[in-house]
Amino acid sequence: MRFAARRHRGWPVLTLVALLAIGAQALAQTDPLPSWNDGPAKQAIVAFVQATTDQSSPTFVPPEARIATFDQDGTLWVEHPMYSQVIYCLERVPAVVKAKPELATVEPFKTVLSGNREAMAKLSMRDLEKILAATLTGMSVDEFNAEARKWLAMAKDPRWKRLYTELTYLPMQEVLKYLRANGYKTYIVTGGGQDFVRVYAEQTYGIPPEQVVGTAGGTKFGYAKNGKPFLTKEPRLLLNDNNAGKPEGIHLMIGRRPYAAFGNSTGDRQMLEYAKAGDGTRLSMLVLHDDATREYAYGPARGLPATKVGAFTQALYDEAKQQGWVVISMKNDWKRIFAFE
Amino acid sequence: MRFAARRHRGWPVLTLVALLAIGAQALAQTDPLPSWNDGPAKQAIVAFVQATTDQSSPTFVPPEARIATFDQDGTLWVEHPMYSQVIYCLERVPAVVKAKPELATVEPFKTVLSGNREAMAKLSMRDLEKILAATLTGMSVDEFNAEARKWLAMAKDPRWKRLYTELTYLPMQEVLKYLRANGYKTYIVTGGGQDFVRVYAEQTYGIPPEQVVGTAGGTKFGYAKNGKPFLTKEPRLLLNDNNAGKPEGIHLMIGRRPYAAFGNSTGDRQMLEYAKAGDGTRLSMLVLHDDATREYAYGPARGLPATKVGAFTQALYDEAKQQGWVVISMKNDWKRIFAFE
Repeated sequence: MRFAARRHRGWPVLTLVALLAIGAQALAQTDPLPSWNDGPAKQAIVAFVQATTDQSSPTFVPPEARIATFDQDGTLWVEHPMYSQVIYCLERVPAVVKAKPELATVEPFKTVLSGNREAMAKLSMRDLEKILAATLTGMSVDEFNAEARKWLAMAKDPRWKRLYTELTYLPMQEVLKYLRANGYKTYIVTGGGQDFVRVYAEQTYGIPPEQVVGTAGGTKFGYAKNGKPFLTKEPRLLLNDNNAGKPEGIHLMIGRRPYAAFGNSTGDRQMLEYAKAGDGTRLSMLVLHDDATREYAYGPARGLPATKVGAFTQALYDEAKQQGWVVISMKNDWKRIFAFE
Repeated sequence: MRFAARRHRGWPVLTLVALLAIGAQALAQTDPLPSWNDGPAKQAIVAFVQATTDQSSPTFVPPEARIATFDQDGTLWVEHPMYSQVIYCLERVPAVVKAKPELATVEPFKTVLSGNREAMAKLSMRDLEKILAATLTGMSVDEFNAEARKWLAMAKDPRWKRLYTELTYLPMQEVLKYLRANGYKTYIVTGGGQDFVRVYAEQTYGIPPEQVVGTAGGTKFGYAKNGKPFLTKEPRLLLNDNNAGKPEGIHLMIGRRPYAAFGNSTGDRQMLEYAKAGDGTRLSMLVLHDDATREYAYGPARGLPATKVGAFTQALYDEAKQQGWVVISMKNDWKRIFAFE
């Protein structure tokens, strides 16, 4: 009895430590997504990770094949009322016109210089393309990176008065980290400019430049006067990373079909189809912007206008149901939207 | 004394184990490149790794920026007398002509079908491009991969009677592993077809598809009759990954300047220049084919003909000296050339 009592006295500390350890582990295992409400979206993500990383699962995926792709605008960060990169290009127009004064009297540059926001909002896709080509090309890659970095460190979204890079969705940041902790390589596959997004992707999302696939122009190798080689950005389009361009870009840059894909607009449709059509367990998810209070509400249920590139049609949500994509309701699935809340 | 003697008797095993452990570690640290003879080439590689990975070094490179790029043909494996991929394309011509019988009477297909090796050796670069376009496009990405995989598992080099994937240089395989063990991401940057090299790069070099940059054509996204999406290979050239195309391809696919680059021909010149021109410690190396007995001798010292794409000019070796690139002599620097020797 005394012996037993001694053992009894001796055990609780160890037991407690063991229970704490198990508890911490269980907590880490059961709550990898603390900003998500319990529901079908969160469950789908957790179930996908278990089905593809548990060695005893019939749909186990070897670590080297674990690829997950994320659209950026509207999927990882705010895209309304205008893509950040478009704002960047519009704000660069005065500098471009200073270098090429003849543009001051030519549309669409004239409208942008007028500062008339209503007129600017009416610019066509073709106008925007002209502005993008003029503002993003002709400089060296190093100059471009330095300019973009400067702007990103300073420019703020007018609604939240925050840097654009702070307007990323905390629940999606958790998904990125959760997938990486489970051996997935996370990629951004964006309609935005590849070079632009690469400037901040590592710091903002933990995604290195080589894992950013985006709309990409050519560069031209040449030599500076001192003989040093450098690259200049050219207007030649190599990859329009929207719509069918997304799976095509994924093949070009990654060479494997993703096991998970995340998007929010018709520009992501083909990527979501491509991921989902692979064998084994695949996850395609669609972010629905239905939270007018905490972010924005647009898309089929709201009748708000589509962005210049992406559209949010009822047909896309019908296809999601048919194909077994999981719709993420920002309103219902996300406890918090931003880290700064 | 007895106590001391007991301790004396007790220690040697532990001491031995400790010494063995230290010895093994020291050996691993001092001989990461066992197939290399001691000399300036081996020393340059080891010094580069120490200068960029030792935290106390003024030229320390953070792990995420550690990028090393390798040309393939003539740098990682045998390229003489003909690139393996060209042989593959020539051998696919009968199947292509079977599908499109009208090509049988058209040059250069007629010459290839004749089987006349001397006539085939005289085909121009333009002829080869026509053959490559005809044999590498029009099929789905999945079909292409399956075809290439089948050929690679069976086709043998006539001199060594070995699979082409066995003809990789053991000393370069050691460099790949050594760099990876020190946190470097290793990339292939090849003039060869990106999709072709991706088929075997993972198994052959430990390099995953997403780390293969090569000459790349476009693909086209579409749907099969059953509604499944798939990609078809198109003849449209997106990236000619030779000469200036190498740094341009590196920017497109990786987005960072490499800290180390390895090549062997004028097709690698701009990549070697680009890597070496970065700040901090950079390593550019040039493989010299000067071993007629164990492999081939060609290039400036031997007067053997250049391959169809790469040239091996005296000017390239002069530039190597000027720019501080390190020349690797296969004859003098490599103890063994192939793993099967």
